[in-house]
Amino acid sequence: MQQRIGESSGLHMDVMDAARKRQAELAKPPGSLGRLEDLAVQLAGITGHVKNTLTRKELLVFCADNGVVEEGVSSAPQSVTLAQTINLTRRKTGASVIAGHFGCHVRVCDVGVNADIREPAVIGRKIAYGTNNIAKTAAMTREQALQAILTGMELAESAVRDGADVIGVGEMGIGNTTTSSAVLAVLTDTAVENVTGRGGGITDESYRKKIRVIETAIRQNHPDKNDPIDVLANVGGFDLCAMCGAFLGAARTRIPVVIDGFISVVAALCAVRICHTVREYLIPSHASYEIGYRIAIDELGLVPLFDLGMRLGEGSGCPIAMMMLDAACAVMNDMATFAEADINDDYLNDIRKTDAFTVKGD
Amino acid sequence: MQQRIGESSGLHMDVMDAARKRQAELAKPPGSLGRLEDLAVQLAGITGHVKNTLTRKELLVFCADNGVVEEGVSSAPQSVTLAQTINLTRRKTGASVIAGHFGCHVRVCDVGVNADIREPAVIGRKIAYGTNNIAKTAAMTREQALQAILTGMELAESAVRDGADVIGVGEMGIGNTTTSSAVLAVLTDTAVENVTGRGGGITDESYRKKIRVIETAIRQNHPDKNDPIDVLANVGGFDLCAMCGAFLGAARTRIPVVIDGFISVVAALCAVRICHTVREYLIPSHASYEIGYRIAIDELGLVPLFDLGMRLGEGSGCPIAMMMLDAACAVMNDMATFAEADINDDYLNDIRKTDAFTVKGD
Repeated sequence: MQQRIGESSGLHMDVMDAARKRQAELAKPPGSLGRLEDLAVQLAGITGHVKNTLTRKELLVFCADNGVVEEGVSSAPQSVTLAQTINLTRRKTGASVIAGHFGCHVRVCDVGVNADIREPAVIGRKIAYGTNNIAKTAAMTREQALQAILTGMELAESAVRDGADVIGVGEMGIGNTTTSSAVLAVLTDTAVENVTGRGGGITDESYRKKIRVIETAIRQNHPDKNDPIDVLANVGGFDLCAMCGAFLGAARTRIPVVIDGFISVVAALCAVRICHTVREYLIPSHASYEIGYRIAIDELGLVPLFDLGMRLGEGSGCPIAMMMLDAACAVMNDMATFAEADINDDYLNDIRKTDAFTVKGD
Repeated sequence: MQQRIGESSGLHMDVMDAARKRQAELAKPPGSLGRLEDLAVQLAGITGHVKNTLTRKELLVFCADNGVVEEGVSSAPQSVTLAQTINLTRRKTGASVIAGHFGCHVRVCDVGVNADIREPAVIGRKIAYGTNNIAKTAAMTREQALQAILTGMELAESAVRDGADVIGVGEMGIGNTTTSSAVLAVLTDTAVENVTGRGGGITDESYRKKIRVIETAIRQNHPDKNDPIDVLANVGGFDLCAMCGAFLGAARTRIPVVIDGFISVVAALCAVRICHTVREYLIPSHASYEIGYRIAIDELGLVPLFDLGMRLGEGSGCPIAMMMLDAACAVMNDMATFAEADINDDYLNDIRKTDAFTVKGD
């Protein structure tokens, strides 16, 4: 393929019009299925078909370590990244059991875990053994950022080659709420304290330290807010870069891509800043409990589909949103139109012939 | 069975404690799966088992006509009740296609459609050919209200006998947002205009008329707000009564029961007013677009799980909430505990023996 990074095409507007027309013909009060109707129309625009079936669903989970954890910003030790990377492939973590239950395939990719992983189910695309500590220096070089982004694109596109009709984008990486807050603060020019939450659950003291660390990282590395790749390279992580690439890859191959929680939405925002048409392929899932989520999703102009107070990450919200997409497809594909439902004055006469009922008084 | 109407038992508190303990042991930050954790704990309390699987799901849809439609309060003709009652059994309506897609059985019951229905898939429990016009007289007699409530209980209990692990409660009945608003206004002592929406979509003029009709119905029939059965008999409908009975029956047989939208939540409130322990068996689904929904769900002390801007009724939100219950079960049943995930200092040593990876620098 000769396309540039991030190059993707817009939606099939004519098919979206046809999809809206069909929604209006379905036997229900206009608009009464709310966002299920909108999702079905968006899918039509993405695929170019009014009716869609999401036969194969994939959750891509990018795993990487973050050097900033040495500042004491996380509640869990760095070894958790490694352990959960393995556990994700064994259907033992939150996201992987939810995905497994709904028949959503999970593809786990090491882009920077601080260990050599020989587990064959983990796709090895390690850029380095974790990033540098952003409180002291840039997370990575620009070349590494590009390599991680291309890796995410590659993974998304290989999922599509394997038949994926929709992908979700999740992560595992201790310390990545810190890097995500840093990236979001820069991209949206927001005060660090307004985009920083408590991640896995830290003390007041650690929380204040986390904010100071992020402020230091931004001051120290002076990322260029108009260059998302520069922001990712300076204060991001390999997971964020690869996730950004997955959003770009999904859009380039024209499949819908589901955002999980805070880290995922920051990666989606990076992708949209690189290529604005990516936005048209995005499906939000849940409102993360992390405070920065709201700022990022607002910046994307999207509204989450549900709010279960979740803040686990890993892509745990994606399979649930995919079920909602399934519901949207079922409505579009299988509901009767007014004509088919015969809900009009002739209906009674038609049905009467089938002897399904007789009207009272006949 | 010799139990009184509405008699039901409380939750298994000891099993809920065990379920909370297990949630705390699962390998995730405490509380990070939010309401999925709460749902799993509630299910444990209902069933008496920490781990649950919702193998069979049932959506009960009660269909009835409402005499008040002769006042011109609805956007659709009365014949739609009949048509959609039939279509529900043929997997052609919104709720039935969504339920069908997710493998949720649909049980359609005629408790008062204004026609003789010979379609064998419709369970015939007709109380009468629709209610009286509440703007002129009581909707039904107290005996009819009790008969409809018992019918709902019977249907719920027969679903359970057939193996249902969870039921959802939906309806089809042109004019039933009018009766639901009337019942809710009385039960919660709320001004009619604050609990009245536009149903399937009516004009400003029809909307003002709808409010006047409800005010007239309440003034005319002087329902006793402290007697939910009196309220249902005076200003309710056969669908509302049967749905109320279904909530009672689910609680009596100790299975979780999912609330759909506005009409369903009003029926749930009636059931809780009859027997307060019913509340413990209720699972909310989506926030209906109808304005009264919020008042009713607040009165129940519940928070909807998602908001898709839907206002179709029929039980269309229930199958989606059941998927969330499935996700909650998957987490409780299949996630590794911290011990099983070996996310501690020993983990690296343990895993190293399996040769899944070697730590950098070893």
